[in-house]
Amino acid sequence: MSKNRLEAFSDGVFAVAITLLVIEIAVPTGEDLWHQLKEEWPSFASFFVSFWVIGIIWVNHHGVLDHLKRADRWVLYLNLLLLMTVVFIPFSTALLAEHLKSGADEEVAAVVYSAAFTAMGLAFASLWTYITRHRAALGVKLSDDEVRRTNVVFLIGNPVYGIALVVAFISPAAVLVINGAVAIYYMVVGMRSPDL
Amino acid sequence: MSKNRLEAFSDGVFAVAITLLVIEIAVPTGEDLWHQLKEEWPSFASFFVSFWVIGIIWVNHHGVLDHLKRADRWVLYLNLLLLMTVVFIPFSTALLAEHLKSGADEEVAAVVYSAAFTAMGLAFASLWTYITRHRAALGVKLSDDEVRRTNVVFLIGNPVYGIALVVAFISPAAVLVINGAVAIYYMVVGMRSPDL
Amino acid sequence: MSKNRLEAFSDGVFAVAITLLVIEIAVPTGEDLWHQLKEEWPSFASFFVSFWVIGIIWVNHHGVLDHLKRADRWVLYLNLLLLMTVVFIPFSTALLAEHLKSGADEEVAAVVYSAAFTAMGLAFASLWTYITRHRAALGVKLSDDEVRRTNVVFLIGNPVYGIALVVAFISPAAVLVINGAVAIYYMVVGMRSPDL
Amino acid sequence: MSKNRLEAFSDGVFAVAITLLVIEIAVPTGEDLWHQLKEEWPSFASFFVSFWVIGIIWVNHHGVLDHLKRADRWVLYLNLLLLMTVVFIPFSTALLAEHLKSGADEEVAAVVYSAAFTAMGLAFASLWTYITRHRAALGVKLSDDEVRRTNVVFLIGNPVYGIALVVAFISPAAVLVINGAVAIYYMVVGMRSPDL
Repeated sequence: MSKNRLEAFSDGVFAVAITLLVIEIAVPTGEDLWHQLKEEWPSFASFFVSFWVIGIIWVNHHGVLDHLKRADRWVLYLNLLLLMTVVFIPFSTALLAEHLKSGADEEVAAVVYSAAFTAMGLAFASLWTYITRHRAALGVKLSDDEVRRTNVVFLIGNPVYGIALVVAFISPAAVLVINGAVAIYYMVVGMRSPDL
Repeated sequence: MSKNRLEAFSDGVFAVAITLLVIEIAVPTGEDLWHQLKEEWPSFASFFVSFWVIGIIWVNHHGVLDHLKRADRWVLYLNLLLLMTVVFIPFSTALLAEHLKSGADEEVAAVVYSAAFTAMGLAFASLWTYITRHRAALGVKLSDDEVRRTNVVFLIGNPVYGIALVVAFISPAAVLVINGAVAIYYMVVGMRSPDL
Repeated sequence: MSKNRLEAFSDGVFAVAITLLVIEIAVPTGEDLWHQLKEEWPSFASFFVSFWVIGIIWVNHHGVLDHLKRADRWVLYLNLLLLMTVVFIPFSTALLAEHLKSGADEEVAAVVYSAAFTAMGLAFASLWTYITRHRAALGVKLSDDEVRRTNVVFLIGNPVYGIALVVAFISPAAVLVINGAVAIYYMVVGMRSPDL
Repeated sequence: MSKNRLEAFSDGVFAVAITLLVIEIAVPTGEDLWHQLKEEWPSFASFFVSFWVIGIIWVNHHGVLDHLKRADRWVLYLNLLLLMTVVFIPFSTALLAEHLKSGADEEVAAVVYSAAFTAMGLAFASLWTYITRHRAALGVKLSDDEVRRTNVVFLIGNPVYGIALVVAFISPAAVLVINGAVAIYYMVVGMRSPDL
C-alpha cells in the first residue's frame, strides 16, 4: 500500500484542525474593544500554543513518514489514532481558553487540555514505536543506533506532557508555558538533527 | 481521466468531515466542569464512533481506488454520492449526541444516525459494485474469485447498519455500540487481508 | 508555472466548501424531532442541490484543467474568482434554507441563491473562455471544432442560471428544482462526452 | 527533506482559511432581507478584500516555493509562522465586519485587521529573506540581481500594510481600500513578471 494518500489525508486533517483553532475564538462585539481583547488573552495564548504544538507534531509526523517506503494497516490505524487526538485539540483549546477567562474550574480545563496533548504524545509514540519495530516490512532504513537516538527525542515529550498534567491541578496557566516549551524544544532539536 | 484529483478531492472531504465532528461538541462553560463533561458523554462517545467509522471508510475507499487505473464519469458521480453521505455525518452525529443528552426523542435521533451510516454503506457498495462490473474499462486487475471474496467483506457492513437502524427504535445507545463494532470488524478484516 | 498546486489548492477549497454546507444546517433539539426534521426540509433540499452543483462544478473544473499543460497568472486569478463564488455558496445556501423555513422574504433569499450560482457560472465561463483563447501558450490541444462543441456544453448553464434568477421572484422553491436540473444536465452530458 | 508535503499542508491551510471567511458572515433571518443584506455590506466587503489578500499571498507563496529544490527546518518553521498569520485572518475579518456594522470602536477593529495583514507581510518577508540568503543549501537558482528585483516586489507590501495600520486610527473603512489595493498591485506586478 502506497503512503501518498496517507500523507494527503493526514496533511488535510492537520490543516483543518490547525485552522479551526481560530474559529473557536469568540469575536467580541460592542464597545470597549481594547479592554475586551485584553480580557481575551487566554484565547490568544492557547490558540498560539496549540497552533505550534500541532505545527511541530505535523513537522515530526512528516519526519517519521519520510522514512517509510510503504504503509501497512497498523500504520493506517495508529495514524488514525494520532489524527483523532489532533482533531480533539480545537475542543480542548477552546475549553481551556473559556475557563481561564471566566476563572471557573480552570484547573479541570487545564487537566483536559494537558490530557489531550498527553494522548497525542502517546499516539505519536505508538506510531513511531510500531514503525521502528517493523522496519524491514515498511522499508525503513534506520540503524538500531539511529532508532535509539531518535527514540530519546521523540519520546521525551511524553513525560513532560505528563508533568503538565500534574501541574494543571496547581497552576492552569503554567500548562500553556510547559506545552509551549515542549514545542520549542522540538524546534531546536529538529534544527540540530536535520535527518530526523 | 486520471484518478489523482479524484483521490485528492475525496481525501480533502474526508479530512474536513472527520475534523468537523469535534466542532459540533459544545464547549461547556462555567462551574462544575467535571460534572458537565460527564454529562457530555454522548458527545464524546458519538464523536469517537463517527471518527472511526469515517476513518475506516477512508481506509476502505483508499483500498478500492488503489485498484483503479483510471476513473470514468460514473465513478466520479458514485464517489460524489458517497462523499455526500460522509459530509452528512457531522450533522447526524451532533443530532444523536444532543438527543442522548437531553433524552428527548432519542430513538428518532438514533434512527437518523443509523440511516446516515446505512446510506453511506449503500453508496460505498454502489461504487464498489460499479467498479467490479467495469473492471476492464477501469483497468482493475482483480479475478472473479477475488471480487467474490472482497464482496463479502465490503458488503457485510450493510445488513449490520440495517440492523442498527431497527435497534435504534429500541435502544438508542446500542446504536453506537453496533456501529463501533462494524468499524472494529473492518479493522480486523483489513489486517488479515492486506491486499484489500 | 506548474498546475499541480493550482489543482491541490482548488481541490482543497472545493472540499471545504462542499463539507461546510452541512455545518449551516441547524441541529434541532428537544421534543417532536420527526416534526422538526420535516420542518427542516428546506435545509436538506438546499444542502442536496448545492452539494451536487458544487460537485459537478468540481468535475467540470477537473475536466478543464486536465487540458492545460501549464498555468499563467490570468488562469490563477480567474480560478481564484471562481473559487470565491464557490466559497460563497454555503452562505447563500443557508440564507435560502432559513427563509424557505420561515417564509419571510423567501423571494429575496432565492434571488441571492440564484445570483450566487449565476456568478459561479460566469466565473467558470470566463476561465474556460480565457483558456480556449490562449491554447498555444497554455499547451491546450483542442481543435477549433472541439472548442466550439464544448462551448455549447459549458456555457449553456449560464442562461439557465439566469432564468432561475428571474423565477426566484415568482417561486423561490422552483429555484432549487432548476438549479438541480442544471446539475443533472451536466451529469448526463458528461457521461455522453467522456473527453470533456 | 522534500517540499511536497510542505506545499500540500500549506495549500490545505490556505484553502481552509479562505473558505472559513464566509462562515463568519452571519446569515440574516426574518423580514426586510434586502435592507438587512445592505446593512451587512461590511461583512461582504471585508470577506471580499480578505479573500483576495489570502488568494494573492497563496499565489506568491506558490511563486516562492517553486524556486526551492528542498526545504530545511527553518523554512518549515518560518512557513508555519506565515500560516499562523493566515489562519488568524478569518478572526480579524469578522472583527472588522462586526464593528464596521455596529459602529462601535471600529478604529480598534481596523487596527487589529491591519495588524494581522502587517504580521502576515512580515512573516512572508522573513520566509523570503531566509530563502534568498540560503540559496545554495535550498537549491534556489536565482542571481543576486533577480533577488534584488524580486525583493522590491515582495517587500513593498509591508510599508503599505504599515500605512494601513496608521490610517486605521482615522478611517476604518479606508483600511479595506488600502489592503485591497495591495492585492491588486500584486496581481498587476505578477502578470508583468511571470517568472516571480
